[in-house]
Amino acid sequence: MKNCVIIQSGGPTAAINASLAGVVYKAKEMGYDRIYGAINGIAGVLRHHLIDLTERLSDPEFLDKLMVTPAMYLGSCRNRMPDPIAEPAQYEQMFSFFKEKEIVAFFGIGGNDSMDTVAKLSAYAAKVNSPIRVMGVPKTIDNDLMQIDHTPGFGSAAKYVATSLLEMAHDTMIYPVKSITIVEIMGRDAGWLTAASALARTSYSNAPQLIYLPEVPFSITECIEDTEKLLRERNSVVIAISEGIRDKEGNYISASDSAVDKFGHQQLSGAGKALEHILGQAIGVKIRSVELNIPQRCGTHLASQTDLLEARALGEYGVELAEKGETGLMASLERISDEPYKVSYKGVSVAEVANGVRNVPREFINERGNDVNEKMLSYLRPLILGEPKITYENGLPEFLDVSHLLSSVTF
Amino acid sequence: MKNCVIIQSGGPTAAINASLAGVVYKAKEMGYDRIYGAINGIAGVLRHHLIDLTERLSDPEFLDKLMVTPAMYLGSCRNRMPDPIAEPAQYEQMFSFFKEKEIVAFFGIGGNDSMDTVAKLSAYAAKVNSPIRVMGVPKTIDNDLMQIDHTPGFGSAAKYVATSLLEMAHDTMIYPVKSITIVEIMGRDAGWLTAASALARTSYSNAPQLIYLPEVPFSITECIEDTEKLLRERNSVVIAISEGIRDKEGNYISASDSAVDKFGHQQLSGAGKALEHILGQAIGVKIRSVELNIPQRCGTHLASQTDLLEARALGEYGVELAEKGETGLMASLERISDEPYKVSYKGVSVAEVANGVRNVPREFINERGNDVNEKMLSYLRPLILGEPKITYENGLPEFLDVSHLLSSVTF
Repeated sequence: MKNCVIIQSGGPTAAINASLAGVVYKAKEMGYDRIYGAINGIAGVLRHHLIDLTERLSDPEFLDKLMVTPAMYLGSCRNRMPDPIAEPAQYEQMFSFFKEKEIVAFFGIGGNDSMDTVAKLSAYAAKVNSPIRVMGVPKTIDNDLMQIDHTPGFGSAAKYVATSLLEMAHDTMIYPVKSITIVEIMGRDAGWLTAASALARTSYSNAPQLIYLPEVPFSITECIEDTEKLLRERNSVVIAISEGIRDKEGNYISASDSAVDKFGHQQLSGAGKALEHILGQAIGVKIRSVELNIPQRCGTHLASQTDLLEARALGEYGVELAEKGETGLMASLERISDEPYKVSYKGVSVAEVANGVRNVPREFINERGNDVNEKMLSYLRPLILGEPKITYENGLPEFLDVSHLLSSVTF
Repeated sequence: MKNCVIIQSGGPTAAINASLAGVVYKAKEMGYDRIYGAINGIAGVLRHHLIDLTERLSDPEFLDKLMVTPAMYLGSCRNRMPDPIAEPAQYEQMFSFFKEKEIVAFFGIGGNDSMDTVAKLSAYAAKVNSPIRVMGVPKTIDNDLMQIDHTPGFGSAAKYVATSLLEMAHDTMIYPVKSITIVEIMGRDAGWLTAASALARTSYSNAPQLIYLPEVPFSITECIEDTEKLLRERNSVVIAISEGIRDKEGNYISASDSAVDKFGHQQLSGAGKALEHILGQAIGVKIRSVELNIPQRCGTHLASQTDLLEARALGEYGVELAEKGETGLMASLERISDEPYKVSYKGVSVAEVANGVRNVPREFINERGNDVNEKMLSYLRPLILGEPKITYENGLPEFLDVSHLLSSVTF
């Protein structure tokens, strides 16, 4: 028997199941007998909680529907694995389970925490001379992984952000009164997704007029100046901010520190609400803030087809690498050109990806630090292209049944 | 010359331009020479700020693109018109302008404030024996207009809410830990849109497990009880609440009353944040709140085709009524059956619609007041059916250029 096991972990994206579809498809093609999915990431492996994805393939629509089902079909976890050399107990248990299940390859789909798990499993495998191939497949809406041009999940989140911003631009243009609309976008440390709001600009709308990323220290004084200047020229100003903007001392711009509500609890409002209060006080015009929140990471109905296809291709490529006998790698892609948009696939050392963060380079941001520039736009544009075919049932997108996530059955 | 003028007013919806497309299409068919759109509602009429929509029809794609362009193509206003008998000055000015422009019909697309404007114009026309026909065409995402089965714009917002809830349900199911997700939905006084969250339920997900509407007094004690009970049976609980939930004394559940942030400003957080703090204090599990905010009313990329076609049909029907010599009416629809879904069109007195509000009837809500029932679901289901064909350009939905809203040119 030649079996494999797959985990998904970290935070949801619209494309992480496309990578799962890629792994399953290619593993089947490569002659794997049983393709197991562990429920809730590495925790599912430790608890022997697997489902047999090979059986799911009897539904001929399984992979197509999996491609467009949001969040993790296999569930997720946030477990941090111990050092495999100093504390090998959990690894011993897992590798013994792998042996029992005749597992020859392990695929971990996730962000940099997940790549840490993959790196540790591969270090343990090397230490005990296990023949099991351990492979990482990337994902994160934050686009902050090292050793890859851009991450699966980012393009779809970027398309969600840009589309929502354009629709909101129409919404903000209807009243002939001065107004400010602040849109708070995910990405605590890396501003890639906030930068994608710039894709909302069209021939008739330049919203958002201001974009603030966490990579540049946020100055309240300059933001007020910038906004007031724009309000002299136009009625509606839209400001896109990262949830993680912070001042030059590194303090987050948020109202949470000392705010107390009427129930005596600390207020936990974020950057958007905080800036709403600050600008509202400083500039006497209509003001509101919108937090795009979790829909931006799970809005598969608005996924980028480019993103889904790359996510799938990376899953397939991970299996190919394992098949070639490689281990300890992450399937990665590099960009060959922006126009025509072209990428190629390669394997990179998962240890070099784990725990690193790739921020927005300063040269992708304008001098004033209140917008992105053409370099960023050229980088972003191809990533949101194309729309997947979504089927609707009773007026809703048709996703895969994920009720197995509710069960606690052990395989 | 046989000309007409159209205004749009109130808050944005995804379908209000479909009604505009209906009026323009039918007016052209009925032989109107010039079809004017007033920019920014009745304010545009008073300021003689018109655009000639007849010219726009030279683009053969104009009406199709208009159908799926969010918010108001003509802009909006929140002007409240004075009593036409006691203060006729503005009306005299408008009707003299109508005469000059050879206007024979006026169409007002909007909610109940807009129907108040239509009613006043029609009362003034009657008083001065003007032959101008004055007609209302309804819209509002709140679905709270009198004299109509449901309002254009509601079905699209409902589809946005239900789809987002389903996607978030997938997002909430991935971690094997107890959690509460609160989703705040628009509708300060009427709970129709919050009720539409129930449409997100599928064979594998019953999220939202709790639904609280403004029509039933909100009890914090009962909400805590309901949530704790659910958390004993399952990991993830999703709670849909209207932004307007209030206690039995009529006080809004919001943290805004006395909350002060670290900048010394009053916090303006809504029901979702408030309930997040309350439940977070009472129940020690992971908790978050999501405010769907303005994307839910302008998310045309996720519009209901049923809604768009009805919105258009109501626009067309308004022109037909005017053509028959009717005035002072609002184009309305009544439901003939849920399954198969069938409606018929009729005119209703606009004076009976103006300023009234249609709340969710108590018999559409369960006894405990924490969910809707099958009566509500049968009512809602047909309204989100069907998806419009949206064309994408550069990865974004292609909408009409609305740069005329930025100009202040007077016609």
